[in-house]
Parts: sequence; C-alpha cells; structure tokens
Amino acid sequence: MAQKPSIPKGTRDFSPNEVAKRQYIISTIKNHFEKFGFQPIETPSFENSDTLMGKYGEEGDRLIFKILNSGDFLSKASEENLQNKDSKKITSQISEKALRYDLTVPFARYVVQHQNEIDFPFKRYQIQPVWRADNPQKGRFREFYQCDADVVGSKSLWQEVELIQLYDAVFTDLNVEGVTIKINNRKILSGIAEVIGASDKLIDFTVALDKLDKIGEDGVKSEMIAKGISEEAIEKVQPVFNFTGTLADKIKQLSEMLQTSVEGMKGVEELNFICNAIDSIGLKSAKLNLDVTLARGLNYYTGAIFEVAAPETVKLGSIGGGGRYDDLTGIFGLKNVSGVGISFGLDRIYLVLEELNAFPETVSAVSKVIFLNFGDKEVLYVLPTIQKLRNAGIKTELYPDNTKMGKQFQFADKKGIQFAVIVGESEMENKQFALKNLANGEQTLVTEHELIENLKQFSF
Amino acid sequence: MAQKPSIPKGTRDFSPNEVAKRQYIISTIKNHFEKFGFQPIETPSFENSDTLMGKYGEEGDRLIFKILNSGDFLSKASEENLQNKDSKKITSQISEKALRYDLTVPFARYVVQHQNEIDFPFKRYQIQPVWRADNPQKGRFREFYQCDADVVGSKSLWQEVELIQLYDAVFTDLNVEGVTIKINNRKILSGIAEVIGASDKLIDFTVALDKLDKIGEDGVKSEMIAKGISEEAIEKVQPVFNFTGTLADKIKQLSEMLQTSVEGMKGVEELNFICNAIDSIGLKSAKLNLDVTLARGLNYYTGAIFEVAAPETVKLGSIGGGGRYDDLTGIFGLKNVSGVGISFGLDRIYLVLEELNAFPETVSAVSKVIFLNFGDKEVLYVLPTIQKLRNAGIKTELYPDNTKMGKQFQFADKKGIQFAVIVGESEMENKQFALKNLANGEQTLVTEHELIENLKQFSF
Repeated sequence: MAQKPSIPKGTRDFSPNEVAKRQYIISTIKNHFEKFGFQPIETPSFENSDTLMGKYGEEGDRLIFKILNSGDFLSKASEENLQNKDSKKITSQISEKALRYDLTVPFARYVVQHQNEIDFPFKRYQIQPVWRADNPQKGRFREFYQCDADVVGSKSLWQEVELIQLYDAVFTDLNVEGVTIKINNRKILSGIAEVIGASDKLIDFTVALDKLDKIGEDGVKSEMIAKGISEEAIEKVQPVFNFTGTLADKIKQLSEMLQTSVEGMKGVEELNFICNAIDSIGLKSAKLNLDVTLARGLNYYTGAIFEVAAPETVKLGSIGGGGRYDDLTGIFGLKNVSGVGISFGLDRIYLVLEELNAFPETVSAVSKVIFLNFGDKEVLYVLPTIQKLRNAGIKTELYPDNTKMGKQFQFADKKGIQFAVIVGESEMENKQFALKNLANGEQTLVTEHELIENLKQFSF
Repeated sequence: MAQKPSIPKGTRDFSPNEVAKRQYIISTIKNHFEKFGFQPIETPSFENSDTLMGKYGEEGDRLIFKILNSGDFLSKASEENLQNKDSKKITSQISEKALRYDLTVPFARYVVQHQNEIDFPFKRYQIQPVWRADNPQKGRFREFYQCDADVVGSKSLWQEVELIQLYDAVFTDLNVEGVTIKINNRKILSGIAEVIGASDKLIDFTVALDKLDKIGEDGVKSEMIAKGISEEAIEKVQPVFNFTGTLADKIKQLSEMLQTSVEGMKGVEELNFICNAIDSIGLKSAKLNLDVTLARGLNYYTGAIFEVAAPETVKLGSIGGGGRYDDLTGIFGLKNVSGVGISFGLDRIYLVLEELNAFPETVSAVSKVIFLNFGDKEVLYVLPTIQKLRNAGIKTELYPDNTKMGKQFQFADKKGIQFAVIVGESEMENKQFALKNLANGEQTLVTEHELIENLKQFSF
C-alpha cells in the first residue's frame, strides 16, 4: 500500500489530548448521572434490523448503517431483484443486522426484553457511540457519542424537576455557567392548536412556530395562513409571538389563553408544577425559561420538552435535549410505560468548553514526570523509585533508550511533560535525584522521599 | 411486533451490575496504563475495507463484518457477478467499510497516518470494542472489548521489563494474585529450529511444540517426525520437552543448547536481560516463567512473546498476551518502526474475578440512599437535602411516586439500596430525618448534618 492510509468520511481519530478532554466531559456527566441514582446499561453496537427499521421514519431507515451477512450472502437473494438491481428490496435479503442509530430504541428494546429483571421505575443511563449515514458536515459525524439518562415506569413530574437539576449540576460542574434550559410541553402546543381551531394542523402549526427566531412574527403568520389557519384564529394566541416577562408571567398568560382547552390547561398545570419546584429549590448556574416555540420531534414527546442552549456568548445552539414520552416501549409490545429523559450532546459540549477555555489544566493524558536514560545500570537503579511514584498515583515514564540527553529533553518538552529526573553516576553515589522543572528550567537535588513528596503536590 | 425482541447472536446486553463490574476492571487497567505513561487514543469503529482486508489471513478476512454501502448500492455492481451470485466478488463492489477486527491494525494505520504529529517512542493505550463474525460459543463473542498498550519507535528491552511490571501491577490491584506471566522469544524458537536443521519448518515445529501440554512429549515428537524432522535432530533439543528448574536454570540450558545459532543466542541474551531486571526489582504478586512452547501468532512477533495465565485455582487459561513485533507499520508503508505491546482479556478477567469472588463490595451502580415519597410537600422539603448529599458525592435517589410505603420499601430492598430516609409531617416539624438501615432494619432520627455525615462514612 503506497498510499497514506485514511479513515472513512464522517469518522474521527482521537489523539491522546482529545481523548483526555472527551473523557473529562463523559466522566463528569457519568458522575452526576450516578449521583442522581441513574444506573448504567450497555447494549450491542448492532441490533437485528427489524429492531431498528421503521422506528425513525423513512429518512431514518435510509441513514441506518446495515451490516452485510457473512458467508455466501447472495445465495438467498431473489434472482429477480438482483437482475433488476433493486437495492431497496435486496437489502433485507442480504443484511440482517444494523448499527445502532440512537440509544433510545435499543433502550426500549432492552426494557421490553428484560422487563422481568427490572425494578420499575427504572433509572438508566447509557453513554455509547451511535452511527448515522448522514452527509458529514461541520459538527455532524457518522460516528458520535450519545449520553442519555431516562426514567421509565413512572409519570411523576418530580422526575422532570430532577432532570432540570441534573442539567444544572452537570453544566455547573463543567464550568459552563449561564446555560438556558428551555422548557415547553406538548400539551400546551396541542392546546394552542385547539384554541385556534387547528388541532388537525398541529404539525404544520408547530413547524411554523418553530421558525419564529429565524423568520420573525410576520413570516410565521404568513406560513400559518398559507397552511390554512385563519387570521382570526391566529389573533387568539397573539401573546405567543411576543412572549416576554418572567416564567410566572408567561404561565399566567398561557393559562388565560388556553382556558377553553382541557389538554392545554393540563400542560399549563404540569409546567406550573415543574417551574414552581425549581423556583423553590433554585438552580446553581443555569436559567430555566419557557419557550412555547420549542417542539423537538413532536411526534415523540407527549409532555415536557427540554432543550439546553449554550451560554449566549457562545454561538453553538443546542447542547442537550429531551422530554416526556408516554409510550416508548409500545413499539415492542409493552404498553403503558411512561418515560422521560434527557441527552447531552458530547461534541457540541466539547466545542463550548474549547471556546470558553473551560477545560481544567489538569485534564491531560501526559505523564507528570520522565526519568531520563543514562544507561542500563542507572535504569535498574531508578526502576524501584519509578514504581514508588506510580504507587503514589503519579504518571511516570522512563525514556526507553540511552540516547543523547538533548534528544531526551527535546522529547519531554515536545510532549509537554512537566518534570524530568536525572540520575547519573554522581547522583547514584550520593543517593540523590536531580529533579528538573521543564517549565522554568529550575533543577534541584532531592532525596527519594523528597522527590515523591514534591511530585505528589503537582500530581492530579 | 408481537414477538419479544431479541439481540443478534454473539452480542450481549449488560445490566447495571455487569456494567459496574466491567467498568471497575477497565478503569483499573486504564489507571495503570496512565501511571506507566501510556496515552489513550481512539479510532473509528469502522475503517475503510482496504485498511483491514488482507491483514488477518484468509480466515480473518471472512470474519470481518462488512458494512453495506448506503443508497443504491447495487448500481455499481457487476451484472455478471450478480447473475452468478458470486458473493465473494460482489462484496467489495457493494461494501467499502468494515468493522474493526482488532485494535492493532487500526493502531498501525493511526501511527502511519499521524506520524508527523507523534513524538516517538509513542506509548499508546486503547480500550474499545472489536467485532468478529466468529461462531459464538462459551466465552467467545461477536462483540468484545480489547484493552491494549503498545510502545512503538524504540527497540529498548526496558519496555518488555516495564510491560511485565504493568501486568503485575494490574492483576495485583485487581486482587488476582498468583498469575503466571509466561515469556518466550521468537528468536529462541528460530534458534531451536535452526539447531535441529528445521529452519524452513519453523511453523510446523512451533505448532507441534505448542501442543506439548495437550498431547505430551511423545505426541509432539511423532508430529514433528511426520512433518519431516529427523529423530536425531529432535534429540538435540531434548531439554525443551522437559523444561524444569528456575528461570536461571532454564536460560542456562537454552544457552548451551543454542550455542551454534546466532539468532538463538540473541534470543537468550534478550530473555536474560529481561529476566535479570525483573529478578532484581521483583514483582508484587505475579510469577514470571519461561515457556519455550509459547508461540502466539508467530508470524507476527519477532522478539519477546508474552502470555498471562490465570491463577492455577481458576481453570480459565490465558487472560492476556502480547509481544514484540519489528514491523507493524510496514503494512502501511512506514518501515523500521519496532513495537512491543500487551493486551488484557476483559471477558476472561471478568470470569476470573467472579470465580475468585474478587470484585470489591463497593463496585455497584446502585444508589446508596433512597428518599421515600410522602407527597409533594414532603418532597419539596427534602429536595435541598438530597442535593447536599449528591454534592457530598453520595448516590441519592428519590422515589418518584407517592405510593404505599410497603411498595416503596420493597423497591428499595429489591434494588439493594442500603439506606432509606423517611420524612413525614412530624419529621418536618422537628427538622429531623428518619434514617433506616435496610440491611438490619435499624432506624434513627438524625439532623440533616448528621444524615450527611453518617452517609458519607458508608459512601464510596
């Protein structure tokens, strides 16, 4: 192979530095998931095709990566379909497995399959990669991680309250202060549609409303009218287009507007419960805000809808989302299991932390100290000390080859290692270690005990 | 879908308890990798097919999972091959990507692709799943994790020494004491073959020798004779069939036996260097042993060969392996990069820990404490305390629904939660918390401060 090797488009290699930063985000999220009582599960990277197909709409089916059957896969394929080169029909004849497209459907499959082993309500989290044959573009990949926490088996709104607290806890801990947790409720959207006599046009209505940010009030109204919603009807929900004031103000306006809709008033009640609880306990650094234009996969959610916006100084849009769904496991035959969950967008959060310079300096995959190599006798002499440093939790490496000191120092410098230990003949004689701080060039002679204590201070 | 859903054969769902135990092993390994100065990288789950195909032999090619191209994949396929249902020829026409088969080839690809960003010697570790379309059987799966640490870019034998220390550190930390780290050297095997005039039959010779455990001395000798190695020749290396004594004894025997082979003597010298160093610094709990029958993928290794055997009380065979390879990156056009590495077998290690009952009790994904739900007023009252407990690092959950106490206690019991906190009207009045130890039924009334301090003691 003369050509330099490459990787498939939309996929990524992660360097040590990138892995360390990603792991920092993941372990922070994981830590809070567990403190909130969520338990980890893992599902296989590929599922039987019929578990995934038909669950994400026609577009989703197209974007699912299919795995070719092993062996003589064509033997069972229809000769007619092959002759006509009918890729669509042939697919299911030569492929029985497909890569996970998200974590939600595999979770639903897991719950149904293991329902007899699970104690409900079941709080699970799952942090694994998913794959989509999407057109790669900036910030959109064919392989990426999802970080999901869901509770199934209870309709209690305390879960929505706790999920908001969870978002707040994670982003505060990640030093991303000032995120906005936007909340809405599917029932409020239904209520608005009902009030304006457009219940049958709920999707058209919400799709139009969702564009308020981009095309403004007039644009949205024209689109609604084009979809057959009357001007008079739209007037009834005028406040929606200019929704300002405190959370309490907004809820008050909504409850006036939606008086005639039973479903709408139920949505207001739910919203009110959640917002009151959050108001009473407070958030650490996030803001909670009602956004009636928020719809996110409307066909899916049945109650609360969440989305987290990055701090305003960072123009990166949504860094998380979720909501309540009343029938997730129904697709696999288990009815009446209500669920609610949230997701963290790892790649976006990574970009936010980069932009805010919010990664702690301690996040690094580099050794704290390197022992330079003066020859076999010297190495044998320092190995027990190296072991003691490692036992003390200090990342320690030995330069493997006895090459020129200049080359060894250059290696340590380029790698960003903070300290070098030099032990030659005279240090061995005096039972001392020359400890050099590579950042400022300072060098001191220390005993083994001092060496360990010194480096412990700088260790993380 | 009326049928209960399932997962593809050879794959696994992992329950919270299993994930916690696997994570414990992985994080122990990772921790030591980093203390030894290894840095993490991650590569994509799928690679371009030409990166993987042809690297693992014909059998390997067959076991690689191929991903079907998206869209109208048949359009580019040869009509003739389709008509003949020639699965083999069609594969490369309808599939350009394939799932990672191991971590070694992707690592070689990574090193070549990123050679200008890497400071050599490069110590990398990688812990990711791999996929093989193997026939599933007990302990063999189609999706499993590999945990690899390799150094490329240096021929120093100190790396072999450090890798042995690394095995020792990990297994000692995992409470798996008494593993045997078997060592051999490709050059010794070549030397033996040379001495008996069977250099051209090195593979036949080592394949036969590898069976010593199973078919005994006579069996191995018959097989060698059948392969055309003379009886007289075999006599020259008689000690190999009955290799006893200390490491030093064995090395002495080898150096006598291999005197006439330059390569063999080089192998003895390497072995001697490594064993002397280990002898001088000592191991914590593992034993190092020379096993001249050890061959492990001989075509691959050029120097040291390692394999770790589980403690003798556990009949589980190899739980790790590795060795020195002098030309890993050559397959991608980068010559003269020597590498040496070791791998940990996660699934086998899991079974060893189960059998030895060696998982610490603290390895658990279950909340430490649950707050029972007496109604909305009470929940609102306890939420700030719950937050304080979580801030103190204690896994805390709230029972979401205000159902019967019996049901709530039963839930906590079944889940294995250790403590329950009960706050009803009277506790609220007295600013107290009833803390119940679910293991022994003891219940005490405590202040919030006492609650947190008490639970901290039991928290991990």
